[in-house]
Amino acid sequence: MELYDCQMAPNPRRARIFIAEKHLDIKTNEISIIEGENLKEDYLKINPWGLLPSLVVDENTVISEVPSIFLYLESMHPEPNLLGNDLLETVNIQSWERFSEMNGMQAVGEFFRNQAEPLANRGMPGFSGVAQVPELVGRGKKRAEWYYSQLNDRLGKSAYVAGKRYTAADITALCVVDFGKAVGLPFEAGCTNISRWYDEVSKRPSSKM
Amino acid sequence: MELYDCQMAPNPRRARIFIAEKHLDIKTNEISIIEGENLKEDYLKINPWGLLPSLVVDENTVISEVPSIFLYLESMHPEPNLLGNDLLETVNIQSWERFSEMNGMQAVGEFFRNQAEPLANRGMPGFSGVAQVPELVGRGKKRAEWYYSQLNDRLGKSAYVAGKRYTAADITALCVVDFGKAVGLPFEAGCTNISRWYDEVSKRPSSKM
Repeated sequence: MELYDCQMAPNPRRARIFIAEKHLDIKTNEISIIEGENLKEDYLKINPWGLLPSLVVDENTVISEVPSIFLYLESMHPEPNLLGNDLLETVNIQSWERFSEMNGMQAVGEFFRNQAEPLANRGMPGFSGVAQVPELVGRGKKRAEWYYSQLNDRLGKSAYVAGKRYTAADITALCVVDFGKAVGLPFEAGCTNISRWYDEVSKRPSSKM
Repeated sequence: MELYDCQMAPNPRRARIFIAEKHLDIKTNEISIIEGENLKEDYLKINPWGLLPSLVVDENTVISEVPSIFLYLESMHPEPNLLGNDLLETVNIQSWERFSEMNGMQAVGEFFRNQAEPLANRGMPGFSGVAQVPELVGRGKKRAEWYYSQLNDRLGKSAYVAGKRYTAADITALCVVDFGKAVGLPFEAGCTNISRWYDEVSKRPSSKM
């Protein structure tokens, strides 16, 4: 099993943290998105859409969607449980994990991708040729602020994103928050609930991944 | 159990078709997105983010992400199987279902939402206040054409989207294709593999939902 990874990218980091929480040792191969290695022939043989991460399970199976990588690894290595111990917990974690992806990761992503110089013709992840749209910098900022406000409300009522314990929903939220910090779109100081949660989850060894 | 639905919207349709394939009888409540009913107080009590569909399971549980609605219904009503009979099939169906959502549904969605008059201040699903971005009409078209080309390639190698049988991945792809047709962004006549598949899946009684 091998993970095709990109150290600076937030979606591969979701997989790296999940793997670290499971105490798994999986070989990684670094592919630079900034240098466009993800769109070159060698990598397109692994993942024809040029997306990262990809988990190569064997010669017949490549998993390249993060929620599917989570599901595969959890099924093969159930402990510690990160995706839910029963149906309602599983549904709840999946919904909150997805909430951070659709509203947080995509928001910070459009803020970043539509202004970053090396991504001039890559306004969307993966396949190239989509021009940057400058208006999406502001839209991404507005959406990210909405996301942070909702996350802050949630963490005022709940110790962790999906409930009383650390799960995959915290992994994706942490990757969004650190991505936002890295690209100049951090949560505001008034988001004290995010701050409390962020300090705690950032202490976990997996967060160094 | 009740489904909050919107007849003209493609994401609630994913849930409606899934429910029909399971032969379930679930009460539905119509919420008009065009008239903004999804952003009014009554509905925000059900789903504070104003998104559709929502499956109200009981007074404590509302599921408002389509993949989570799929997972809940499949777990409670396993037959006919739509999400996979073993781990690798489950991962494969999940990946293809998500492929259509992220690349197809979001592409046609941005084409439509950024020009439709009634959605002038609702350039994103749910919470209002995000202005339309005219450049996204063209970007959505380009992304949708890329999606159709990939779907056509896939259906040249595979009877159904995720493999040899009808699954949730076909439901989401069908909802994308019909959404594209409805808003003036249909697949091109040259996509003969999509056409062959589309004719077949459209004959299923569930497609009338």
